[in-house]
Amino acid sequence: MAKGERTRKEIIDHAFDLAKEAGLEGVSLGVLAHQAGLSKSGLFAHFKSKEALQLGVLEEAVERFTATVVRPALAEPRGERRVRALFERYLAWKSGTSGDRCIFLSLAHEYDDRPGPIRDRLVVVLADWHQTIARVAQSAIDVGAFRADLDTELFAFECQGIIMAHLHAVSLLELPDANRMHIAAFEALLDRSRAPSPSNTASR
Amino acid sequence: MAKGERTRKEIIDHAFDLAKEAGLEGVSLGVLAHQAGLSKSGLFAHFKSKEALQLGVLEEAVERFTATVVRPALAEPRGERRVRALFERYLAWKSGTSGDRCIFLSLAHEYDDRPGPIRDRLVVVLADWHQTIARVAQSAIDVGAFRADLDTELFAFECQGIIMAHLHAVSLLELPDANRMHIAAFEALLDRSRAPSPSNTASR
Repeated sequence: MAKGERTRKEIIDHAFDLAKEAGLEGVSLGVLAHQAGLSKSGLFAHFKSKEALQLGVLEEAVERFTATVVRPALAEPRGERRVRALFERYLAWKSGTSGDRCIFLSLAHEYDDRPGPIRDRLVVVLADWHQTIARVAQSAIDVGAFRADLDTELFAFECQGIIMAHLHAVSLLELPDANRMHIAAFEALLDRSRAPSPSNTASR
Repeated sequence: MAKGERTRKEIIDHAFDLAKEAGLEGVSLGVLAHQAGLSKSGLFAHFKSKEALQLGVLEEAVERFTATVVRPALAEPRGERRVRALFERYLAWKSGTSGDRCIFLSLAHEYDDRPGPIRDRLVVVLADWHQTIARVAQSAIDVGAFRADLDTELFAFECQGIIMAHLHAVSLLELPDANRMHIAAFEALLDRSRAPSPSNTASR
């Protein structure tokens, strides 16, 4: 990796940590320049604008999410195992990267009413995640694990709802039962998604 | 209403509108004083601190929510009608007060990692709402509309998940099917909550 590339990566890593705490709008170029041992204008040699840096952080988050959640889950056999891997790895992603927060859901709140290139890119990223869940559910249909008439879009919608309710329960409601509840809700969703024939047990 | 009380109410109303857009931390005392035709010190005669004002806005949100969502729903007969009223009025509350946002969920994101009196109060408010859903589900059990072994805490958890997934789908995913999906998810939740006997149809 060339020196310029290394510095760029280092700046992005620091900015990623700042964004987890303060959001992308809260990323301070002064703080970042200091952390990287650069002047502000030195920082701008690597990123032409604050927005370019923010988009860089979002891409970094997408890469990390793909590497730790999506790719390993897609390496599991199609069917219930792959669906479970996706759900469980997402829960691990949240607690692993930023306490009980998910950087994408934090950005969703930060940018839902803030038009511009970051929101545009975020909408695509979130829609991709929704489609990933739906596609994995479709692959479970294809191998006979899920019933053929399952609405995969609705499956993705309900999956996302369980994840969000869980985050909410853990980070604010402080429900002692939060873990039991997301597991119960997810198992119930699997129950009603499974194909009625015994063929589904083969792929678990 | 005395003049001091009217001024206080006017300040809170303006602050409520600001908080919907910018969050409670984004409420500017300078802007508020200007809107109310007061100096900053005149504003402090009504609220001893910015935090007291922010807590006042949170209480105003709770009062409005109780008046437009909880109280009318509790006036419905126990059973499925009351459960539906709670869910539908919450969806109407969101779109009515702040585009497709819910001020409580916005505050949840603003304060989940910001300890202090506002977060403490917010936790109680959100837990109250969770308990309200669970209690309404319990009253549906009591009249025989919902099955006796329904986990009412899980019902409340799943209900909140559907609401959050809907908000997410509308405000960011821009899914054309967002409305169809939250209705389908909620109807499926009702389906699996109903008592198996024909007695449940009497209370619909």
